[in-house]
Amino acid sequence: MRRPTIADIARRAGVSSAAVSFALNGRPGVSEHTRQRILAAADALGWQPNTAARALSAKRAGAVGLAVARPARTLGVEPFFMQLISGIQAELSERANALLFHLVEDVDAEIGLYRKWWAERRVDGVLVVDPRTADPRPAALRALGMPAVLAGGPDPAGILPGVWIDDARAMARIVAHLRELGHVRVAHVSGPSGLLHTERRSAALHEATRPGATGTTGPTTVTTDFSDTEGARATRSLLSAADRPTAIVYDNDVMAVAGMSVARQAGLAVPADVSIVAWEDSTLCRVTHPTLTTLSRDASRFGATAAGRLLALLDGEPPADVEFDVPELIVRESTAPPPA
Amino acid sequence: MRRPTIADIARRAGVSSAAVSFALNGRPGVSEHTRQRILAAADALGWQPNTAARALSAKRAGAVGLAVARPARTLGVEPFFMQLISGIQAELSERANALLFHLVEDVDAEIGLYRKWWAERRVDGVLVVDPRTADPRPAALRALGMPAVLAGGPDPAGILPGVWIDDARAMARIVAHLRELGHVRVAHVSGPSGLLHTERRSAALHEATRPGATGTTGPTTVTTDFSDTEGARATRSLLSAADRPTAIVYDNDVMAVAGMSVARQAGLAVPADVSIVAWEDSTLCRVTHPTLTTLSRDASRFGATAAGRLLALLDGEPPADVEFDVPELIVRESTAPPPA
Repeated sequence: MRRPTIADIARRAGVSSAAVSFALNGRPGVSEHTRQRILAAADALGWQPNTAARALSAKRAGAVGLAVARPARTLGVEPFFMQLISGIQAELSERANALLFHLVEDVDAEIGLYRKWWAERRVDGVLVVDPRTADPRPAALRALGMPAVLAGGPDPAGILPGVWIDDARAMARIVAHLRELGHVRVAHVSGPSGLLHTERRSAALHEATRPGATGTTGPTTVTTDFSDTEGARATRSLLSAADRPTAIVYDNDVMAVAGMSVARQAGLAVPADVSIVAWEDSTLCRVTHPTLTTLSRDASRFGATAAGRLLALLDGEPPADVEFDVPELIVRESTAPPPA
Repeated sequence: MRRPTIADIARRAGVSSAAVSFALNGRPGVSEHTRQRILAAADALGWQPNTAARALSAKRAGAVGLAVARPARTLGVEPFFMQLISGIQAELSERANALLFHLVEDVDAEIGLYRKWWAERRVDGVLVVDPRTADPRPAALRALGMPAVLAGGPDPAGILPGVWIDDARAMARIVAHLRELGHVRVAHVSGPSGLLHTERRSAALHEATRPGATGTTGPTTVTTDFSDTEGARATRSLLSAADRPTAIVYDNDVMAVAGMSVARQAGLAVPADVSIVAWEDSTLCRVTHPTLTTLSRDASRFGATAAGRLLALLDGEPPADVEFDVPELIVRESTAPPPA
């Protein structure tokens, strides 16, 4: 059984396609008698109003969009992202909404996609991830009039409502732990530069380890694409330096695990020679040997909250920011005092 | 700027909404002069044809559907699933298609969703996952006339083209390795019963360890929901039995890792007291201590292939099955001869 078309209904009811279109859209132009005959034919064929017809009648698309400008290969190994999506899904499914998911090349392509989705009434709103330091998306979404929530706010432009965790205070917690142990050379293996949270974390590390203020040396941040491969490369470069760090903070757990392997291959013991801290507490952190010290973010609840804020916005609630508690540091075996 | 509507265009062009609808859909009923005026107004307002209009003109929705009847909480911890989706995304993005993703309660809800998606022209086809032993979905999709590919085939009903890995032969490889080491009591911690691949693996294990044929005792399969929690529970129940298994095969890596922790807590050494085999070779398997013996499936390539087959089908290519090579067994530290 293929999908019934306007032409099928017209054939069955013995009228023109234009008459069917009028009748189905509730517009004048056909008699009530003909209209009833057409609706009966449409019913008999199992016809259902399509997305556009519903949009025209002010109903919802029933879908929320998520466009992600990250390489596909890094998604599958990134527990944060998958937990985020699983949290979004849980919240959307509870309210019978689907997630329209699209990988894009960059933010320009992402904005183009938003225009298309909005023009075609494909989604009722979007979740925007990976906020950037100079981010054209909030203004573009405001221009479109498209409901959106920024997962990873607050929006520096003050346009989109956001759901976020204070990365600077989270980094400060990590540094406090490392300083208490006696570390002075702390390096940071981060995500791509230009991401708001990467910049916030690096700035916070820099601030917390200012030479004048604390007696520590300035930090070195190495940027990556979040993949284990680049995490390993960054670690090799840090550990081969003359004044190698005694502690390394990683922006996700996959890179922390990869970095720990690199340290071991270089003949360095973790944590005796180098301490390792991860940012995500996924299963990975608990099964390594030694187990990993990490922050306790709940990415799934983060995703569910962002999706919930968007659905509330669609229900007409006023935009509201949600700031999560600063994650606790879970101290495990991968951090210890630096070598004497 | 909100989305321009038919009414906005009508107002700007000074005509009725019905005339706009006629003009935009290329139907008779307005003069060519009026039609041009209406199209100019539509252009000026940035109007774009919507999904339904494109569907009526036989263009594609540009999206592929994926409905998954699994609890949201198990998705985020399941590397296979996330790798699968990342492979699907990679293939779809290359061809500018989006993925419409929806979690559902059960297969009945899934079929209802397919009907809705198809009637509303929301997707051009669907990827069907987690095939079941008595699966109503292939027949329902045939009845709808909706293009679909079964990820995890072959379709026992012979309706949908499938992409699959021969689970029975994969299990036989695992059992051959364990028997060579001398194991006679091999247990299986599987996914939910009723899933085709779960049943295939259990049957293959049963066949390979028939008491008469091999001198081994029959296998015990414990079903789970694929989560680490249930993997731990299943392991506790297996290890507390009087004739506890000397080797346990897990249907994913998260459960294998959880099982290894349970064994350790019970005072059993891995692999000296009990050997552990995982089904997915994700990062997890390489970072545990001991590292995990596992199959070498490439879930990302599997997802990309399934998506590619569906896109080919949409392009008019004839349906074709794709069978992957049987995965190799990667022997690491978690398997050894059983205790004497």
